[in-house]
Amino acid sequence: MPKLPLPPEANALLRRPNPAVIATLLGRGAPHTAATWYEWDGARILVNMDASRLRLQNMRNDPRVSLTVFAGGDWYRHLTLLGRVDEIRDDVDLADIDRLSLRYTRRTFSNRGRASVSALIVPERWYGWEGSSFWP
Amino acid sequence: MPKLPLPPEANALLRRPNPAVIATLLGRGAPHTAATWYEWDGARILVNMDASRLRLQNMRNDPRVSLTVFAGGDWYRHLTLLGRVDEIRDDVDLADIDRLSLRYTRRTFSNRGRASVSALIVPERWYGWEGSSFWP
Repeated sequence: MPKLPLPPEANALLRRPNPAVIATLLGRGAPHTAATWYEWDGARILVNMDASRLRLQNMRNDPRVSLTVFAGGDWYRHLTLLGRVDEIRDDVDLADIDRLSLRYTRRTFSNRGRASVSALIVPERWYGWEGSSFWP
Repeated sequence: MPKLPLPPEANALLRRPNPAVIATLLGRGAPHTAATWYEWDGARILVNMDASRLRLQNMRNDPRVSLTVFAGGDWYRHLTLLGRVDEIRDDVDLADIDRLSLRYTRRTFSNRGRASVSALIVPERWYGWEGSSFWP
């Protein structure tokens, strides 16, 4: 699998608010997957979750994650990034989840009453796929 | 996370040819994700891949997998199944990949020249999610 940086086409795909699935590791090392919003700033991938989520506990135990991102409505083009959680921080004032919510839904996040936590992921390797061959 | 059987609504979702992402474990235990076709027969989940794929090697090394399935075009409803690979078999005559291809594209599989392998997964635990709460 290639290392970063991403080629421009892959970088452009990752910049958009696409459907994505993140895999983390449960305590005994089994994989766990969940759909997620994300944001790529060119260096790290932001994800955010309710403080009670299992995947948060997983990321605290083992920083290794994998993220598969679909190209919008076309799920035959996708990009996968393997990397590590570099930072976990409380999302005070819900600033991060609001940024993600605005990005995906154009509205601030509706559920204001729960503690929210952000994780910043540094991708290390990647591959892209379209139809039946590597992309781009 | 609940054990199986699935409630009827989740079972019905899983029967449809939905976009899905499968997580497997790389040799050192890091998660690896990939988009996949699948078919659920009520007992096991069929996935199929080119014999050269990394995730096949992963499944031979460690049978633990996680699959997140989106409800067709609505990626705010999804179902995740955690389980184990129960059987890996050569897909002689491409019967399995043709069945998956017909299910998803209504055509037999176009690339006839490569060796194809099937994995049958027994799901053990699951969760469903819609918007911001558990589903169904």
